[in-house]
Amino acid sequence: QLNLRRIQLNRWIACFLIGICTALAGIVIDILVHTSADFKFHYILQTLVDRCDNGEAIAGGGCMWLVQLAWMAYNCSMVFLAACLVIFWSPIAAGSGIPQIKCFLNGIHIPEVVGLKTLVVKVFGVSAAVAGGLCAGKEGPMIHSGGAIGAGISQGKLHKKLDPGFFKEFRNDREKRDFVSAGAAAGVAAAFGSPIGGVLFAIEEGASFWNQALTWRMFFSAMISSFTLNATLTYYFKQGGLLSWNGLANFGVFEDKSYTIWEIPLFLMVGVIGGCTGALFNSLNYRISEFRKKFVSNKWQRLVEALLVAAVSAFTGFVTLFVVDDCVPLGLGMNRTEGLNRLYCKKGEYSAVANLFFANPEESVKSLFHSPIGSFKPTTLLIFAIEYFVLSVWTFGLAVPSGVFIPALLTGAAWGRLFGLGVEWLFPNVAGIDPGKYALMGAAAQLGGVVRMTISLTAIILEATKDMTFGLPIMLVLMIAKWVGDFFSEGLYDLCIELSEVPLLGWNAPKMARNITASKVMRSDLVAMEKRVRVGRVVEILAATSHHAFPLVDRIDESDTSRLPDYGRLEGYILRTQLVALLKKRAFVGEGEEGLMGEMMSEQDFIDVDLREEKVEMGAADEMAMMDLAPYMHSHPHRVPLNASLPFIYRLFRGLGLRYLMVVNEDNRLRGIITRKDVARFKNTKGFALRELFISDHQF
Amino acid sequence: QLNLRRIQLNRWIACFLIGICTALAGIVIDILVHTSADFKFHYILQTLVDRCDNGEAIAGGGCMWLVQLAWMAYNCSMVFLAACLVIFWSPIAAGSGIPQIKCFLNGIHIPEVVGLKTLVVKVFGVSAAVAGGLCAGKEGPMIHSGGAIGAGISQGKLHKKLDPGFFKEFRNDREKRDFVSAGAAAGVAAAFGSPIGGVLFAIEEGASFWNQALTWRMFFSAMISSFTLNATLTYYFKQGGLLSWNGLANFGVFEDKSYTIWEIPLFLMVGVIGGCTGALFNSLNYRISEFRKKFVSNKWQRLVEALLVAAVSAFTGFVTLFVVDDCVPLGLGMNRTEGLNRLYCKKGEYSAVANLFFANPEESVKSLFHSPIGSFKPTTLLIFAIEYFVLSVWTFGLAVPSGVFIPALLTGAAWGRLFGLGVEWLFPNVAGIDPGKYALMGAAAQLGGVVRMTISLTAIILEATKDMTFGLPIMLVLMIAKWVGDFFSEGLYDLCIELSEVPLLGWNAPKMARNITASKVMRSDLVAMEKRVRVGRVVEILAATSHHAFPLVDRIDESDTSRLPDYGRLEGYILRTQLVALLKKRAFVGEGEEGLMGEMMSEQDFIDVDLREEKVEMGAADEMAMMDLAPYMHSHPHRVPLNASLPFIYRLFRGLGLRYLMVVNEDNRLRGIITRKDVARFKNTKGFALRELFISDHQF
Repeated sequence: QLNLRRIQLNRWIACFLIGICTALAGIVIDILVHTSADFKFHYILQTLVDRCDNGEAIAGGGCMWLVQLAWMAYNCSMVFLAACLVIFWSPIAAGSGIPQIKCFLNGIHIPEVVGLKTLVVKVFGVSAAVAGGLCAGKEGPMIHSGGAIGAGISQGKLHKKLDPGFFKEFRNDREKRDFVSAGAAAGVAAAFGSPIGGVLFAIEEGASFWNQALTWRMFFSAMISSFTLNATLTYYFKQGGLLSWNGLANFGVFEDKSYTIWEIPLFLMVGVIGGCTGALFNSLNYRISEFRKKFVSNKWQRLVEALLVAAVSAFTGFVTLFVVDDCVPLGLGMNRTEGLNRLYCKKGEYSAVANLFFANPEESVKSLFHSPIGSFKPTTLLIFAIEYFVLSVWTFGLAVPSGVFIPALLTGAAWGRLFGLGVEWLFPNVAGIDPGKYALMGAAAQLGGVVRMTISLTAIILEATKDMTFGLPIMLVLMIAKWVGDFFSEGLYDLCIELSEVPLLGWNAPKMARNITASKVMRSDLVAMEKRVRVGRVVEILAATSHHAFPLVDRIDESDTSRLPDYGRLEGYILRTQLVALLKKRAFVGEGEEGLMGEMMSEQDFIDVDLREEKVEMGAADEMAMMDLAPYMHSHPHRVPLNASLPFIYRLFRGLGLRYLMVVNEDNRLRGIITRKDVARFKNTKGFALRELFISDHQF
Repeated sequence: QLNLRRIQLNRWIACFLIGICTALAGIVIDILVHTSADFKFHYILQTLVDRCDNGEAIAGGGCMWLVQLAWMAYNCSMVFLAACLVIFWSPIAAGSGIPQIKCFLNGIHIPEVVGLKTLVVKVFGVSAAVAGGLCAGKEGPMIHSGGAIGAGISQGKLHKKLDPGFFKEFRNDREKRDFVSAGAAAGVAAAFGSPIGGVLFAIEEGASFWNQALTWRMFFSAMISSFTLNATLTYYFKQGGLLSWNGLANFGVFEDKSYTIWEIPLFLMVGVIGGCTGALFNSLNYRISEFRKKFVSNKWQRLVEALLVAAVSAFTGFVTLFVVDDCVPLGLGMNRTEGLNRLYCKKGEYSAVANLFFANPEESVKSLFHSPIGSFKPTTLLIFAIEYFVLSVWTFGLAVPSGVFIPALLTGAAWGRLFGLGVEWLFPNVAGIDPGKYALMGAAAQLGGVVRMTISLTAIILEATKDMTFGLPIMLVLMIAKWVGDFFSEGLYDLCIELSEVPLLGWNAPKMARNITASKVMRSDLVAMEKRVRVGRVVEILAATSHHAFPLVDRIDESDTSRLPDYGRLEGYILRTQLVALLKKRAFVGEGEEGLMGEMMSEQDFIDVDLREEKVEMGAADEMAMMDLAPYMHSHPHRVPLNASLPFIYRLFRGLGLRYLMVVNEDNRLRGIITRKDVARFKNTKGFALRELFISDHQF
């Protein structure tokens, strides 16, 4: 009893720490990015432009090239840093990290995905990538970092060499998964200032099954994280009243809050466009990823590609600045790119293009949402949307930590605002058409079309704009975008997962799968043991297989008809870790001896077995000894009969979060085993026909 | 394929209709309450007071008594109406309805709980009860109405005689349950203007298992409902810009939005108080309910009790108005009780007491939240809080539809504001202490202490106040209130469910249940059949039992050791509805005949069997005929071995939403069956010791 209370309390303490640490990671990222931007603008740019003005450099165009070269060099060096960290230290930290977290929460163990190394690379890598001017968001990596922090704290260690021994009671897969979901929620809360959205995200994208107490703890982590981030950043940037900061990506409050019913069809059109462009994004990115997998496999090639993208991104910005002449009087919108404006605009004006291309992307989104009419020319918006779209398609999947949220929002905000200008042009006499409103809808539509999240994305956008008024239209836009997008392709994260060939189980069993039975799904070449087993055989099996668990049966006979043995009744199963622990503790007796099989082991002895390290060697005498597994086995594994249908099996895996399922015949004799991978092989294709996938051999 | 798409589309259409209709129910309730209040104030009160002023009635105190009598008579007649509807027409419509919806979503069928009659009584009953001045909220009944609408629309009929035949594909328990949860979400959205809170409510209190697509549809219903309500009520009351209305219970926006870190301990204290008073509320109400169950069982007694409470409520208000002298200058707070003020206050002043007791409760909550300092005297608040607490304890559980949300919020807001005044008195030099802030925390704490909801309640309060700033403190307050409350008693709804002896399954298996095995949980006096069975035996079994499904085994032998037969291997199961349909279609052949067992039936033939109507009568010749059940049976029921532990069984029931589970021995021979009721018998008591409950025989 007391113990149960203590564990309960520890869970809350762990969640508190997860919230705090995730916020700290967010703070580090934000301050690094901010400092780098300051450095870039004030020291490099300002200084150079000043020198240009003073005529020290070559006159005219030449000076511009100098600025541009310095800018590109700085960006490339930052991206070089990020790419080196990823390529040479922690390849799993590449990309957004949301697909990896999704897989982890779905019950699939990918090595190192929530390790300390990944966390460090993620935090510093994403800071460098964003500072390097890539079309990359820091939100996805924030969420991944949150997950890694959740795992690290709950396990009481981030690395096997640093083990102070806290929270030993949480060292099992189930608890770890719960804390990772709390960390992911905290990550969303820190990234967008949206704790409710964070919880919904963790539930929607992650947790296979819903649990009230877990959700409440996730919410606690998310709230603490969002609060800590607000308090600290408010203090750091000395911005007005306490606690007024709101997450890293804060889209500002809309002043003009109303919309009328006749605007809803227009919003739906925005949704359709977002679904199409989102699907286009996904399929282009999928093609590029496939290409990359084949032709850019080498480490150096990947590094060069990252540098190339950095250079092209910077170059594109400058070329656009040069070609598009969009100078706007100061004071009309926000201006955060002082140095650059002076290059191309008269005094008292600033360059709208520079404002879009060179400012912090979150600020660009804000200025697209809130700038008054006339701040951006239609051509600027069009060119920017197309260029940013192409660049972000190319960027996502590079060997740097980079998210897709902010690029998608920014692209969408640009074409959404363009759409809004179009609406205004068509209906010049109707008051109340604010292009910012359409920018918001466009941003939602583009992001929804790319990631295909539903309720959590709505909550995130609502919380980030701090207003419920646009709830209905945003929901409708996201819904339409998802429908339209689903018509063409899967969501970006699902495509990533498909590319990496991980056996993720979706929400529902594939349709038309009713005729597939357990006997077709299972693998019958399984390795089972009897309850009393020779040590030699155990050692042999452990060496020969990498299975995670072994069924125990009452007898094993030679089969008449097949080369596989004929297994008897299923009695239970035993884990690999248990076998290793038993062997290490020498819980067996020599041949012929009777009585108790060595010392009884307690549950405590079975945790903390690190399978990677354990090589069990036995002497010849020991090999003949007998072990009794009966006291340690799990005596009632989940089982299904041979004629169970695939949807039935699917529901068991999803609903209970299983890793394997025994298949027995009508006499309860073991006939096969079904793993998650066996179930995940069956997938729907477009026309509802069933497809069998070949899935790579991740160990799980 | 086409069919699948059509069903998918129909689901969305049904959800759209659910949203619209739930909003309409909310609109009807609101307009009825509003009209009644208008009538009461303007026609009864104003007229009488005018006549008093004109000296037509007996002078002074006598006139007051006349007003009071008229007021009480009106209230009592309204409550009489509500109570008659409930007592004589639809007893299930009494109370808040949330426990019933919770049970329904948990998988328990209570007859009539989502029927048309219940809906009508709920909508008009709650309007009358609130109009009758009871300490009752309309929010719980709104949620129940939403659920009933969800069921009615998805089944394409609200009543068996009105069946246009829509949505036939949804006529099964699972789909119905999904739509009821969508309706409940829509109900919350309409009641509080909080669609996200509604979805979270449906998930937290209801849905046994999480499903992304379902959640998205729930959200759609909730959004549509909230939008429709806003649009219609804004139009009806002609209040400013379009869509500015926000749910029935809208708590207004806080102007003074900040709080400082040193206030958090104070908020936590509020949480502790709320937990205590909430637990007190629950245990007092539990006592009263037990008393009622024993001594107020008669219909007329229940009617009299309802009238008594109505009279006492009105009387208490007047007495307090008379005793407590709290006249406040006009313009300081809100004033909506013109007529009454004139009785007790000078010109240019109004009575703060009247404002609390006689205004619409939602308005009272708002004025406690937002009125400036000095609007209420501490004594007024104290007396009001105590009186309202007592009255609402007495009211909840009366034979009228009445919720507990608003009474709890109002009580909490009153003592919270008192607490705020206390804080201000203690720290007179600190700026920024707004008693309204503490009123909000008090309201949250009281409600949290009573209902013990977590994340959904946070979301509801945040959305109803339209501000995220107080997110962290509200969450902390609710958390503390729940912890403290759980220390003393269960949540109010759980107590209601316990009183009604319904076998609800909680989130987790009871602790200390690992040693209880399936052989202890199961009932072995089950009725099974062979696959080829005599018609006579089927008729006999259908008449003798009320089971919902029957296991099929390969043989049934006499047992040597027990009076129960010895069943053979489990082969499948068949539903009662299927048996009835087979008998009605005469899907059997006479004795001795061979070949196909009559006509094959399709799935379509098995829906729409109404068990209440079907009395199957067979001739003597038919009784000897044989039926073959093999083509129709479900061939792989969920099964567990005899040694499966209770937590294991619990997880199966919860995770998969099962109704029954077969228990087999190691040869796969049927040994018993476990129903939801058998699992629900085992409950935790305080000290973690396990308790076996006796559960009444609801049919399910």
